[in-house]
Amino acid sequence: MLNALFMELNSSCPIPISQYPHVLLAHGGGGRLMHQLIGKMFLAAFRNPLLETQHDSTVVALTGKRLAFTTDSYVVRPLFFPGGDVGSLAVHGTVNDLAMSGARPLYLSAAFIIEEGLPMETLWKIACSMQQAAQRCGVQIITGDTKVVDKGKGDGVFINTAGIGVVEHGQNVAPQNVRAGDAVLVSGDVGRHGMSIMAAREGLQFESAIESDSAPVHEMVLDLLRAGVEIHCLRDLTRGGLASALNEIAEAARVRIEVGEKSIPVREDVHAACEMLGLDPLHVACEGRLVAFVAARDGERALKIMRRHTLGAQSATIGRVAESAAPLVTMKSAIGASRVLDMPSGEQLPRIC
Amino acid sequence: MLNALFMELNSSCPIPISQYPHVLLAHGGGGRLMHQLIGKMFLAAFRNPLLETQHDSTVVALTGKRLAFTTDSYVVRPLFFPGGDVGSLAVHGTVNDLAMSGARPLYLSAAFIIEEGLPMETLWKIACSMQQAAQRCGVQIITGDTKVVDKGKGDGVFINTAGIGVVEHGQNVAPQNVRAGDAVLVSGDVGRHGMSIMAAREGLQFESAIESDSAPVHEMVLDLLRAGVEIHCLRDLTRGGLASALNEIAEAARVRIEVGEKSIPVREDVHAACEMLGLDPLHVACEGRLVAFVAARDGERALKIMRRHTLGAQSATIGRVAESAAPLVTMKSAIGASRVLDMPSGEQLPRIC
Repeated sequence: MLNALFMELNSSCPIPISQYPHVLLAHGGGGRLMHQLIGKMFLAAFRNPLLETQHDSTVVALTGKRLAFTTDSYVVRPLFFPGGDVGSLAVHGTVNDLAMSGARPLYLSAAFIIEEGLPMETLWKIACSMQQAAQRCGVQIITGDTKVVDKGKGDGVFINTAGIGVVEHGQNVAPQNVRAGDAVLVSGDVGRHGMSIMAAREGLQFESAIESDSAPVHEMVLDLLRAGVEIHCLRDLTRGGLASALNEIAEAARVRIEVGEKSIPVREDVHAACEMLGLDPLHVACEGRLVAFVAARDGERALKIMRRHTLGAQSATIGRVAESAAPLVTMKSAIGASRVLDMPSGEQLPRIC
Repeated sequence: MLNALFMELNSSCPIPISQYPHVLLAHGGGGRLMHQLIGKMFLAAFRNPLLETQHDSTVVALTGKRLAFTTDSYVVRPLFFPGGDVGSLAVHGTVNDLAMSGARPLYLSAAFIIEEGLPMETLWKIACSMQQAAQRCGVQIITGDTKVVDKGKGDGVFINTAGIGVVEHGQNVAPQNVRAGDAVLVSGDVGRHGMSIMAAREGLQFESAIESDSAPVHEMVLDLLRAGVEIHCLRDLTRGGLASALNEIAEAARVRIEVGEKSIPVREDVHAACEMLGLDPLHVACEGRLVAFVAARDGERALKIMRRHTLGAQSATIGRVAESAAPLVTMKSAIGASRVLDMPSGEQLPRIC
């Protein structure tokens, strides 16, 4: 097996070079191109069943318990934005990825790639923000790394956080478990984080400032689990937004997901800002929102539990899962017409996380 | 306590801004400036007993067993160098950090920050190299992340690997455990990785190519543990080289470490290259070498076990630990004179890992 893999690795690049000789910004955008890069290159190279679960975090059986393990780098620009900064985002994002496996987040690592010349005060502000976020999330940053790259070879600071959590229940929360009949719930209004970053970056002025929704959602998830809600899958709505999350899950579970446009909460100002920039709010990232797939009979109860949280007050049931010959996401419009909701192909909003 | 910490975090930056208003390349160099940045800023912000162990990886008791957790980002330039590349380095480095806690490395994460425009073939080569290194180390890459930053805001590709290992023995391998009488061993010739990078970068031609020593040392460590050698501390000799590692340990254990210059293996060509560039080989990084502090009575046995490995064939006993009022590293020269071996203050070799 080892020899076979070596041979394969020595074969040529699995991304068609004639079409994509170089990595594009779009390859990091959460859309089709990113999925192609991950699927054809990284999954092919690192091939193993654990990686192939393709979930926000990977669960391993270790020392008799199940642990979740995840990693994310944060390259958001600007470093500070309404409602957050790269430091708190790096904590919330990784805490949320652990929660998406139903794990209780415990420990984070923090690795900094700093561009030479970054003001020392800026780094301190970011470190403080990370610590405050970690305290609020009940996690500890227990290991770290510091690298500095020459001026012009980085962009202020990039932060990687990896995380470890413990799965304390018997459920297996993973996209492969979604099945026909499942209720689909979203934990609040979508698209706010991405639009907050865009507004900050472009200096756009809206009637009211759009604040990022960056926040940790693990308490809400743990409450659902404690209440015994049968959760089939959870996903946080980061790059590529709700549309990408739904398409990823439809593909993993080989199902059709039907959602209603009217039932998906989008704030008025986010809607207006998206319209102005020609964006679909369903493609825009959140950093404190999740989509939950739960057993049909638990749908109402899950909604109540989610709404009890400040973060989940606007939770809504947005659709259901149906059998399908091919994976598909469809959306019924306000006037009743049904259309395919695709994932974005490339990068609409670079470096929003 | 939470309130007290919040207050403290809102205080001003703990690095003297008048002296260091900006982050310098030297803050990532493995010397005094980096230790100041980590100690005064990150340890102060993230304060917790686990982080304060300041070891290459942090050991946590979880689900009844001890796990080691570590992270490192790799920003080496050039991406490919004699004896390795950023991909294999990212695997070896993190595997070695886990081994430094006496852990058996199990799982890695892989997070890529790619600069727009990186040739797709380059990324594939690096991914293949990572996989081959992971297979040789017996670890699996089970979770990952892909980010792309705009051209001119990165440098090819930066890779972060975090790692999880399991501590399967009863020993506590940590710098605080070093004590007077301990034997100090090094697992081979030092300074090779750094000089290999410098030669590749500067286009220097030596009589023979200097190849990086990048390699995984965990098997050697596990052999020492299986043989029941009483290991007090292990450290791999990365940024800042042997001199930094010894000084870090002397400070953590509050001891004096005495080494003999003649007993430290340095290859002739590395020595010559260092002389040409005005560098001290004891300040130059390795990526496949460790220093081991073992109980005096186990010194000879440990040396034999280390020499049995291809990687450790040149292992040597280089000194011993003595009581001291203040932490100190001293080196006896070939002619018998003793001098203080300090850690470098700043950055002699930027971006060697």
